[in-house]
Amino acid sequence: MGSAENFGASRVVHGTPVVQGLAYGPVIRPAGMPEFDIDAAATVAPDDREAEQEKFSAAATTVADRFSARASASTGSSAEVLAATASLAKDRAWLGTAGKLIADGTPAAAATVEAIDQIAAMFTKLGGLMAERVTDLKDIRDRVVAELLGMPEPGIPNPDEPSILCADDLAPADTAGLDPARVIALATRLGGPSSHTAIIARQLGIPCVVAIADLNDIPAGATAFVDGERGVVGIDPDPKTITSAVAEAGRVAEAAASWRGPGQTADGHRVLILANVADGPSARAAAERGVCEGVGLFRTELAFLDRSDEPSVAEQTDLYRSVIDAFDGDKVVIRTLDAGSDKPLKFVTHPDEANPAMGVRGNRIILSNPEIREHQLDAIAAAAKGTSAVPWVMAPMIATVGEAREFAALVRARGLVPGVMVEVPSAAVQADQILAEVDFVSIGTNDLTQYTMAADRMSPELASLTDPWQPAVLALIERVGAAGAAQSKQVGVCGEAAADPLLACVLVGLGVTSLSSAPAAAPAVGVKLGGVTLDQCVTAAKAAVAADSTSAARDAARTVLG
Amino acid sequence: MGSAENFGASRVVHGTPVVQGLAYGPVIRPAGMPEFDIDAAATVAPDDREAEQEKFSAAATTVADRFSARASASTGSSAEVLAATASLAKDRAWLGTAGKLIADGTPAAAATVEAIDQIAAMFTKLGGLMAERVTDLKDIRDRVVAELLGMPEPGIPNPDEPSILCADDLAPADTAGLDPARVIALATRLGGPSSHTAIIARQLGIPCVVAIADLNDIPAGATAFVDGERGVVGIDPDPKTITSAVAEAGRVAEAAASWRGPGQTADGHRVLILANVADGPSARAAAERGVCEGVGLFRTELAFLDRSDEPSVAEQTDLYRSVIDAFDGDKVVIRTLDAGSDKPLKFVTHPDEANPAMGVRGNRIILSNPEIREHQLDAIAAAAKGTSAVPWVMAPMIATVGEAREFAALVRARGLVPGVMVEVPSAAVQADQILAEVDFVSIGTNDLTQYTMAADRMSPELASLTDPWQPAVLALIERVGAAGAAQSKQVGVCGEAAADPLLACVLVGLGVTSLSSAPAAAPAVGVKLGGVTLDQCVTAAKAAVAADSTSAARDAARTVLG
Repeated sequence: MGSAENFGASRVVHGTPVVQGLAYGPVIRPAGMPEFDIDAAATVAPDDREAEQEKFSAAATTVADRFSARASASTGSSAEVLAATASLAKDRAWLGTAGKLIADGTPAAAATVEAIDQIAAMFTKLGGLMAERVTDLKDIRDRVVAELLGMPEPGIPNPDEPSILCADDLAPADTAGLDPARVIALATRLGGPSSHTAIIARQLGIPCVVAIADLNDIPAGATAFVDGERGVVGIDPDPKTITSAVAEAGRVAEAAASWRGPGQTADGHRVLILANVADGPSARAAAERGVCEGVGLFRTELAFLDRSDEPSVAEQTDLYRSVIDAFDGDKVVIRTLDAGSDKPLKFVTHPDEANPAMGVRGNRIILSNPEIREHQLDAIAAAAKGTSAVPWVMAPMIATVGEAREFAALVRARGLVPGVMVEVPSAAVQADQILAEVDFVSIGTNDLTQYTMAADRMSPELASLTDPWQPAVLALIERVGAAGAAQSKQVGVCGEAAADPLLACVLVGLGVTSLSSAPAAAPAVGVKLGGVTLDQCVTAAKAAVAADSTSAARDAARTVLG
Repeated sequence: MGSAENFGASRVVHGTPVVQGLAYGPVIRPAGMPEFDIDAAATVAPDDREAEQEKFSAAATTVADRFSARASASTGSSAEVLAATASLAKDRAWLGTAGKLIADGTPAAAATVEAIDQIAAMFTKLGGLMAERVTDLKDIRDRVVAELLGMPEPGIPNPDEPSILCADDLAPADTAGLDPARVIALATRLGGPSSHTAIIARQLGIPCVVAIADLNDIPAGATAFVDGERGVVGIDPDPKTITSAVAEAGRVAEAAASWRGPGQTADGHRVLILANVADGPSARAAAERGVCEGVGLFRTELAFLDRSDEPSVAEQTDLYRSVIDAFDGDKVVIRTLDAGSDKPLKFVTHPDEANPAMGVRGNRIILSNPEIREHQLDAIAAAAKGTSAVPWVMAPMIATVGEAREFAALVRARGLVPGVMVEVPSAAVQADQILAEVDFVSIGTNDLTQYTMAADRMSPELASLTDPWQPAVLALIERVGAAGAAQSKQVGVCGEAAADPLLACVLVGLGVTSLSSAPAAAPAVGVKLGGVTLDQCVTAAKAAVAADSTSAARDAARTVLG
């Protein structure tokens, strides 16, 4: 889908494509905080301050209650996100600061802005998970100010006709209630392939382009298209051309909807299409979809986060068993705990780090708490007992041959199949020697990209660098694929890259033997792969590695793979 | 120097070698904070609190004055470090907190500990430069407590006979006054090759081993040796064997002292030995030593740090001219501003970042302030005018071919010679394509190592990963060296790796054509290089790249290079 002529659009802008698909409709934009003058000199007369306090409390309560009501009306992770925002809206830290300011005569709206901005600055300094709440805080601020000024609630408009949502960035609270029948595509100025916006778009299955520097050139009210495969947004396309292209894209989507695997190229080269899961329910949901042949990445963090102590071996065994049972007899690849960095554990004392993404995380937890990994391996072995499954177990953040060797010995001692994640550049460079120590590897493209480019994957400014189409990243993956082929060992990919149909074909051409992603992304990958030959994949891969930019790599792959 | 038998020592421990040389003598350890009970329930009677305040003020003033006096007695960076610590000791932030605690009845020593620990926790959270001051803060705390309790001042003892200093880690204030005639070697449990301890040892020219996990097995008072080439510390060596080995090491050091270049292998393969400088005085000092053939890395940050505005082009021109003049006609490689991360600029608004080392730093400053780089290039061109020099100019943190191309065009437009730093793994992977855009590259081994291993170079826990002998790092350097040879372009190294004589030979074997380091390190590198052939360097390099650990890489190189 898509065309070089951009459907005759009068103006196009470019960004990073994250969810494929083609959409066409009017542009809407979220309403920001209503504009109002903060007059630093304005004070509320002492007699009126109590009334001002009451007005403020009523507004803050209204906003918090609306979040709670929306949380009750939602399910799953949307409900959790909305409930968390509701409790942030009721947090005494900012309510108290605002209350004091009002007691000293600051008008309620100005006090709201000042209190929230103070706490947002502190959250930003704290980094990690706290920093990610800043968008939520600002969202609360804007809603309370609008309520105080008697203006309509800001946020995502609820359009009458199917529309394209353009924004700087989207807060979890904004996107939690999005209806894919009304919002048919997302385009943002900030964010990268693993940003919140991208993850939501992937869940909803709507086309999405992020990191569009010139997005402000696309005004609300314009008629536009979003091409989620090429990363283009354009206004005023020729209606006939775009309508026919959207219809063709719909036929492709339909083919995906009925796709049931197994993954293979047009000439029969088999590629395992696997699912990323986090627990029993997500594994059962993946199995019920019937499009994945097993689990390529079972993230075991869920059992450990938000706890004050380590879960018992029995408790862990139950969790691991629930996932093994969901895919009875099929391949299940379990990743040992990847805590640290943005996923700190409460029961592991762990130094404050200047750069937590390059700190004591993943397998490095053994430096302070080696027993956690031992217990986890014991639980995995216990979970496998009495089933027909022999789980594959891999360690995250392996950087050296010695680390791989040490981990493999522990896993083999328990009758399990050892592997490692390749997400540290050194592991890709030494893939030959590391594969000699283990039975398989799985490439984590999100982290591999951020380290290879020395660019934080959460940084909105650096989104063009943290793109898995970077030729240097593809060259490292090529090195791993070649090492796997030479030793006849499996090389998987379990990052967001495996969910991009075009890139998935390139990865297969680089020697990748399995692709693991959110199950919702699997059918489009399977359909694309079924339409090309292995030779085409190899040719496209060579061209992409030799390219000198991400767009040249995408173009080169598209030329070969259609 | 050194021997496999460890000179008959009864117990040896291993760490990361950072400054070569062999020393033998009694072990001393710094005195820590004197032990005293903090009785949480103890309070000073209201009538005695004023006297307690006075006692506290007197102790804090005494400690601050001692730092000031030592600052006056020192020169250069030692003086600056001591003066900074003196002003931290007088800082109202912690004095005020302690004062309030005393006013509420807390005894002065307990108040000192609580106040400093509070502020230290805050500094740690802030990260970067502030976090690096925590060791200084704790040093102040220990000295004030000792003063309050009437105990001897903690810190480095001043030994009567030449001794080996073993410590967990060393504060800048500890090491600023070290006399290399009395402290003849350093060994620490924490720290890496670019830690403060390593930098001081290199300046003093005394053997140094860091990151020795088992250092606590070496007790104060024991007689020990430190082998700074192999990274070994051992107690009770055979006196005759060790004395003769130390004498031999002394002869090697003497040869280094009289070495005057130029750098070349025994069979005449020329290698440029260059100096890292930061301003006119350091460039003139390097030129006067007469061991370096030019400047391999002129760090231009000094003109920009601790300022509230950008220095004018004229001001910059004077600074750059002073360095060019010091090496009149010789090669001078200027690196454009490498701000960001741990070197923030006051006049650049710059987002708070969760992982600043992977953030908007180095060349990425153009995302927010492109004019700074333009002004700097204008100033470099102006500085070169009327001299016989044609400065080589390189950009830090280049990650893509496109960034290299864009930078090269700006540099060429001003009649200068463009290059880039290779410190991001992607730049090493794409060395071929990047070298096609520029005239030279220089490998920054400290940063290249931290990104390749995904391990913060400042993290004491991860020091064994952030070692430039990591075979994966050497493999990436090999790739850059091969690209340089294929295009007949110069490939320099300007990280700490260029100061390690054994590693320097390996780098030459990997295709590196120039080595730039602190001028004090140059003679030992020159002597070592002059004792081996290019063939030996190539053989050692191949063996080191093929090794599966840093120690195997060092051993393999030593076997070939002696």
